[in-house]
Amino acid sequence: MTDARRSRGRPRAGDASDTRAAIVAAARAQFAAKGFDGASLRAIALEAGVDASLISHYFGDKSRLLVDTLQLPVNPIDRLKPVLAGDIDEMGPRLVTAFVSAWDPHHDVFSALIRTALGSGDPSATPVLQVVRNIVVSSLRERMNGADAELRATLMAAQLIGMATLRYVVRLEPVSSAAPEKLARWYGPAVQQLLTPPPG
Amino acid sequence: MTDARRSRGRPRAGDASDTRAAIVAAARAQFAAKGFDGASLRAIALEAGVDASLISHYFGDKSRLLVDTLQLPVNPIDRLKPVLAGDIDEMGPRLVTAFVSAWDPHHDVFSALIRTALGSGDPSATPVLQVVRNIVVSSLRERMNGADAELRATLMAAQLIGMATLRYVVRLEPVSSAAPEKLARWYGPAVQQLLTPPPG
Repeated sequence: MTDARRSRGRPRAGDASDTRAAIVAAARAQFAAKGFDGASLRAIALEAGVDASLISHYFGDKSRLLVDTLQLPVNPIDRLKPVLAGDIDEMGPRLVTAFVSAWDPHHDVFSALIRTALGSGDPSATPVLQVVRNIVVSSLRERMNGADAELRATLMAAQLIGMATLRYVVRLEPVSSAAPEKLARWYGPAVQQLLTPPPG
Repeated sequence: MTDARRSRGRPRAGDASDTRAAIVAAARAQFAAKGFDGASLRAIALEAGVDASLISHYFGDKSRLLVDTLQLPVNPIDRLKPVLAGDIDEMGPRLVTAFVSAWDPHHDVFSALIRTALGSGDPSATPVLQVVRNIVVSSLRERMNGADAELRATLMAAQLIGMATLRYVVRLEPVSSAAPEKLARWYGPAVQQLLTPPPG
């Protein structure tokens, strides 16, 4: 069976990696052109020349597809799961610890991502910021209550980006070589303050 | 009197702007080559061809000279003064308010500074990071007590840089258009947490 005659149904096993690659390439183009909200699985499937059901089959949902287009050394969805699952009153330090343990071994990748995101003409079209907004912020937001939860969740992302910029990109001491436990101890409660602000 | 015959003493009034410009140019070169700590007023004076006493006369001290080399639309020393002077238990919100009211009118300058700082090969040689460390962090640090004060002060700078990156550089909503009072209300206490952490 040649490529030209390939049907739109579920492909044979041998075709799987080609199909995945075609979907990822189409998704990357759609996310760049239309943003996360604007990109539809239907349009991605059409561009990739596959049935839309194959996207769910291979990737699960649009968030996971977005993560796959980035080819990150760290999967933010998987790393966030245990952070989000536990007690919300301890989530701030847990989030800082999970973030640092995920990115410390890949500080060079993080630096490249930040530099790309800040250097581009339209940052909202940048995949890494789509991940920040549609995966990190939105999953934090889901666990939050009270006024201005969307703003507070986005400010939590600001805290992580600020810490990581000093630690990985500009390497400012003493943040750049602080032990992860120290960061969790001091920065964790500052993150917690936005997550569960005391009443009043 | 020609330039070649100008003596090393205090210059006549007409020479003042030339002298200031020569000092600023020499300072910029010294800060870039040796960092803030490594640059001496004596070496700057030598490079500028003036007496070292003229630097204090025109600029006050090394911090103010550093700020002048940047030609910022906002003078961080002057903006920090009222923040630092007041009650420490309310300093977090005051710092956020002062930061946003200083930079909101100059968001394009802030974006350019951040992009330059993150894009350069050696960020520690970047003037804006020398301002962060030697003016913002060090003056916060002076008012702080308790363990890891240097780390906590630097993490406060991380918070401000993170917020400003989302607000001015990548313009991520709802941070980018949040009212200053909302930022002070939510982010202020998160900054305060690092300034005066509760015991325990």
